[in-house]
Amino acid sequence: MRRAVALAARGLGSTSPNPVVGCVILDAAGQPVGEGFHRRAGGPHAEVHALRAAGDLARGATAYVTLEPCAHTGRTAPCARALIDAGVARVVYAVADPNPRARGGAEILRAAGVAVERGLLADEAREGNAAWLTSVRLGRPHVTWKYAATLDGRSAAADSTSRWITSAEARADVHRLRAEADAVVVGSGTARADDPHLAARPAGADGSGVDGSGVDVVQPLRVVVDTDATAVRPGARVLDDAAPTLVAVAEDADAGALPEVVRLPRSGRGLDIPALLAALYARGVRSVLLEGGPALAGSFVAAGAVDKVVGYLAPALLGAGPTALADAGISTITEALRLRMTDAVRIGPDLRITAVPLAPAAGPAAVPGTAVPTVVSTAPKER
Amino acid sequence: MRRAVALAARGLGSTSPNPVVGCVILDAAGQPVGEGFHRRAGGPHAEVHALRAAGDLARGATAYVTLEPCAHTGRTAPCARALIDAGVARVVYAVADPNPRARGGAEILRAAGVAVERGLLADEAREGNAAWLTSVRLGRPHVTWKYAATLDGRSAAADSTSRWITSAEARADVHRLRAEADAVVVGSGTARADDPHLAARPAGADGSGVDGSGVDVVQPLRVVVDTDATAVRPGARVLDDAAPTLVAVAEDADAGALPEVVRLPRSGRGLDIPALLAALYARGVRSVLLEGGPALAGSFVAAGAVDKVVGYLAPALLGAGPTALADAGISTITEALRLRMTDAVRIGPDLRITAVPLAPAAGPAAVPGTAVPTVVSTAPKER
Repeated sequence: MRRAVALAARGLGSTSPNPVVGCVILDAAGQPVGEGFHRRAGGPHAEVHALRAAGDLARGATAYVTLEPCAHTGRTAPCARALIDAGVARVVYAVADPNPRARGGAEILRAAGVAVERGLLADEAREGNAAWLTSVRLGRPHVTWKYAATLDGRSAAADSTSRWITSAEARADVHRLRAEADAVVVGSGTARADDPHLAARPAGADGSGVDGSGVDVVQPLRVVVDTDATAVRPGARVLDDAAPTLVAVAEDADAGALPEVVRLPRSGRGLDIPALLAALYARGVRSVLLEGGPALAGSFVAAGAVDKVVGYLAPALLGAGPTALADAGISTITEALRLRMTDAVRIGPDLRITAVPLAPAAGPAAVPGTAVPTVVSTAPKER
Repeated sequence: MRRAVALAARGLGSTSPNPVVGCVILDAAGQPVGEGFHRRAGGPHAEVHALRAAGDLARGATAYVTLEPCAHTGRTAPCARALIDAGVARVVYAVADPNPRARGGAEILRAAGVAVERGLLADEAREGNAAWLTSVRLGRPHVTWKYAATLDGRSAAADSTSRWITSAEARADVHRLRAEADAVVVGSGTARADDPHLAARPAGADGSGVDGSGVDVVQPLRVVVDTDATAVRPGARVLDDAAPTLVAVAEDADAGALPEVVRLPRSGRGLDIPALLAALYARGVRSVLLEGGPALAGSFVAAGAVDKVVGYLAPALLGAGPTALADAGISTITEALRLRMTDAVRIGPDLRITAVPLAPAAGPAAVPGTAVPTVVSTAPKER
């Protein structure tokens, strides 16, 4: 199962709106005869890849899968049926499928006489699928807020200079986060100040678009929250061909010549964050990497829409300049967003801290009056 | 020698203006026959403790000492002579004594026919004596700036509430830092807002003033930088009997009924930091724990007078409120005070980050025009 969890992770960033799934098939003697992972929505599921590799050796074998095999016919046939047809004798899965349209695979398998076990390495498998599981539970994308700051919490100096607060190693790590996300989101201040590109550079950085594992880097959707449609100008780097780009503007903004625009209701100083997340979800986005700036991050925190925090802390002090987070609607210490640190590791000279909120985040159901975005989009894909 | 370094550390906070020193004596068979450490200025040196414990067994033995045995007669006789008189055959020391009035012990030993070796575990011994070595090199106390903040760098919420940003475990760790320092320094803002006590609570916290190692906790000098003499009022907790207290005010301030005051020249918005450090050095202070607030910390950074940074980061976000550091005179990214992280460890739910400046700090010699403080004090003690 550990191998299956590792295989599943290779699909991160390319399977949405589907989960990542890994599968390993062992014969009666415990020898691996086939393995696979889900590479992209619409393509074969992990179990199908593994069964194809195993061929006749699947007969009487045990399949280890990170997620309950699906029971429904989407663009591919149900995996529970494929496992039965291949003669698999036993299926061990880590996490039950929470998707109402896909679950039930375990029952189908049992009804066909296949031995079924659940829960092996469930924590690891759940962690590997955290973004997708959150999106199923909340009906909105999972949001990771990433920031870079000095030890005293500054994201730039007093004169706005910020290149480079963190190291080349930390910036390379951010490209990995981008490659694992379905969408990268920044605000108008960042777009105006940095003219960022926001595409994920492959780990090999050889321009081939293929990373070391032989899997294509699927570029995330680049999203700029540009409420008044004044920050993204023609010729902006974010408008090049490296990846698709969406500019989110207010319903009453003059979007002019911007290519792809989604119009959303205003809320306070900016756009309505639940409406933004609903619009992204409708486009199949299940994981968002929020890259700033401070005001947009503050709006996400205020909306209860941060599921994970990844901070890159540089060993430096500034004592002045913009902070990493602003205007989160918190005025006293008891209202602080309390987190639990899950990880703290050195990245070059810097420190990367990962943390998750102590209280689970709210979904649209918990935010009354959320407007439905005025956006025409493709229907949600199914697994 | 490793044992000697560990013994030396037990003197931290109680030996100034002397260094911490540990000593272990092994007989010809390699068996320990005596050990000791320097407990307080004016008391016996580490070598004398160890020689007393060894008695006649010191004859022909090897002494391991973390610092070169002293050559001069202060309140105690020179250790080099004591080692010779006891018949020690060989002395191994880690770090040479940089103090011009005490060094030369190695030569005296060699002249008497004792075998002398230097450099064993020098890095560890130097690290353990960092504050004292810095104070000898710079002619001012070693300064550790300690702060507590949220992940986004806030030391309090927008309404100034800050109890408690960090955990009980982190606060207990701060008491350990206080116990190891000769003086704890805060600014007027902190004195006014928090009415802090600033004494070190012993590790046992049983009120006996004795920690687990059987050594008295020597309380640090409590120092409040109260430029205009308006923050420390009669009845302030910092004025109780738990530890000595010094209030640093401007030369032209009306100090009224404050008990012990040192008058210093003004500089910019506050007091002249090199003059403050010179006044503390003149009182025998060799290590300072700077506990804030942000403006005072900024003045220390601007003066090049921070030798070590210890930050307690709480897994929480505020998005508003005072930052941990302000007004350090840094306006652009290339002027940032760049550090090297030496340590990052969990303290309860929090993270403690330790870092030191990449460029060595400046002493009084590098700060032209430093005024001599108008303070009457005891003469510097000698080792």
